[in-house]
Amino acid sequence: MLPADVPAIWLRDNCSCPDCRDPLTDQKLFQITDLPDDLGVANVRPVDGDEEGWEVVWANDGHVSRYTAEWLQRAAEPDPRTEDGKELWGTAARFADGLPETTWAAYLDDDAERLRMLQAVARLGFCLLRDVPLRDGQAQQVALSFGYVRETNYGPQFEVRVEERPNNLAFTNVAITPHTDNPYRDPVPTLQLLHCLVNEAEGGDSGLVDGFAAAAALRAQEPAAFAALTGTSVPFAFRDDTTELSAHRPLIAADPAGRVREVRFNNRSLGTLRLPAEKTEAFYAAYRAFARLLLAPERQLDFRLGPGDCLVFDNTRLLHARTAFARGGARHLQGCYADLDHLFGTIDVLKRKEAQPC
Amino acid sequence: MLPADVPAIWLRDNCSCPDCRDPLTDQKLFQITDLPDDLGVANVRPVDGDEEGWEVVWANDGHVSRYTAEWLQRAAEPDPRTEDGKELWGTAARFADGLPETTWAAYLDDDAERLRMLQAVARLGFCLLRDVPLRDGQAQQVALSFGYVRETNYGPQFEVRVEERPNNLAFTNVAITPHTDNPYRDPVPTLQLLHCLVNEAEGGDSGLVDGFAAAAALRAQEPAAFAALTGTSVPFAFRDDTTELSAHRPLIAADPAGRVREVRFNNRSLGTLRLPAEKTEAFYAAYRAFARLLLAPERQLDFRLGPGDCLVFDNTRLLHARTAFARGGARHLQGCYADLDHLFGTIDVLKRKEAQPC
Repeated sequence: MLPADVPAIWLRDNCSCPDCRDPLTDQKLFQITDLPDDLGVANVRPVDGDEEGWEVVWANDGHVSRYTAEWLQRAAEPDPRTEDGKELWGTAARFADGLPETTWAAYLDDDAERLRMLQAVARLGFCLLRDVPLRDGQAQQVALSFGYVRETNYGPQFEVRVEERPNNLAFTNVAITPHTDNPYRDPVPTLQLLHCLVNEAEGGDSGLVDGFAAAAALRAQEPAAFAALTGTSVPFAFRDDTTELSAHRPLIAADPAGRVREVRFNNRSLGTLRLPAEKTEAFYAAYRAFARLLLAPERQLDFRLGPGDCLVFDNTRLLHARTAFARGGARHLQGCYADLDHLFGTIDVLKRKEAQPC
Repeated sequence: MLPADVPAIWLRDNCSCPDCRDPLTDQKLFQITDLPDDLGVANVRPVDGDEEGWEVVWANDGHVSRYTAEWLQRAAEPDPRTEDGKELWGTAARFADGLPETTWAAYLDDDAERLRMLQAVARLGFCLLRDVPLRDGQAQQVALSFGYVRETNYGPQFEVRVEERPNNLAFTNVAITPHTDNPYRDPVPTLQLLHCLVNEAEGGDSGLVDGFAAAAALRAQEPAAFAALTGTSVPFAFRDDTTELSAHRPLIAADPAGRVREVRFNNRSLGTLRLPAEKTEAFYAAYRAFARLLLAPERQLDFRLGPGDCLVFDNTRLLHARTAFARGGARHLQGCYADLDHLFGTIDVLKRKEAQPC
């Protein structure tokens, strides 16, 4: 039988008949306010057919809806953008047996390999593509292989190398401690790609830190600090000769159920909080506790990008860093931003192809 | 004197000396963990000079920081993306004296006029540019006048007209009830532009509804319903032959202080909730209450786009709609998406220019 506690409104709203959902677009054709307040079931009968299911006749208008038992019992899908959809890695030891990586050729030629790489970004926060052609604009080509480039004031792509008059410390040779990019932007770019063209400098190594793992650790160790960070909007700001950007967002953004969904951490662009003294003290104590976790050396996965390596990582979750390098040393990365929505979408399209081979 | 309750850590973190902030980039040069746990003030003395202020000498390392009284007393800046930064309009009557509009020529030639239009988008959620050239790709040119185009699976731009095999009801001639675009995307496009090239059809009028005003009304009338919506992540989904997209977000997203920050409302792409029966009932009651508010005719501002009109609106706040039109009637809009971060950034740059005329 139809489970007794299934809400009628939920059943009716999910009717999949061609009058309720457009067969071409699968879009719902009625408004929720089109359903009557006194929605009632007139009759429920088992459906004839191979698959177990029920046919519901609605009392008010005689509309008929069908539901399979499989559909009715389906479990909720977790939000894959929260910690629930991730494999958190607290320390670099997780990658003792190697990084999630493949060659550009394998990624292009083999759907299974492409799926494995994109799933690594979804689950672990990053992947590394090797032997990516040493061509100008190639980071954007990588982004276009699963989604779209997000252009910003830094351009459709940006050059990470020493500049004469940098508008950002990234474009100098100093060490950059772990951070997420562009926290002063909303929407923040959810993905970053860094393609190494030259790295002959002494130093200039890369590091990644799992911000979700650190946030989960903070919640376990100091729940009040976690609550202070999820509960405080912080101003971030950036300005140069032609640009002004600011965003008010928490360092740890949780979904309505309290699951970690986005981390922003960037000492360089944190603006000035204007809160009552007590809240300010609580925020700073929590900020320092979170920073100590994020900056603990054992949390940082260090590796060196060589020419042809393209790192793709989740900028809502992973912090990235680089060591200082000798001022004369040649180091040139090209980067661009992109977004997670289409990366996840490409994963789902590849899974669909896998399930229905032609 | 320095106010007694100013937290030392806040003061120290906001030191603006050239050792603490890079003079070129204005970026902070130290990590929060670089500051000692036992941070203490050794001495405070008034600064000599025209402007009232204090010099603080730090106990641990003798570092000296200066703060003006003006800076110390500055009020918190509200997050302009929340309802706090908006003028909510509950009904179309707000625009009885006219829409926020100007001509494309005035917008291009006059910084004050451009600022007025962009501020209308920031404060009211939209503006209307008239006499925008009837050229292919012009909506994107409007986006580039204050920011960047957000490309999606619909392309860098999309054609709103009747299509043979539409993947979205927008591309048919049926009426489209008020909705926000692309709720199945995260990050959602925060701005939409619609440029009218042809509108000779019977029908096909446009409507706008202030989702923030409706959310505020819901909170006032039915606080439990407001809490149910801000507290429930809802799955939205879109699929066609080549695309799969989904996002789990609440219908009303509030910032940590409970201020309305983002509204998503789209009956066509709302997926299937999988919650316990009691929560499902509460959600649907709240969803219907919110829908009744949003769809109340008096909340909808109706107008007709004519050739050359370009509507720019905040897709995180305003719902848009269109009436049905005759199938044979010619109607062609070009649209594109963009983001609010650079629109607000352009407002701030224009204000900076205004404050410092050359």
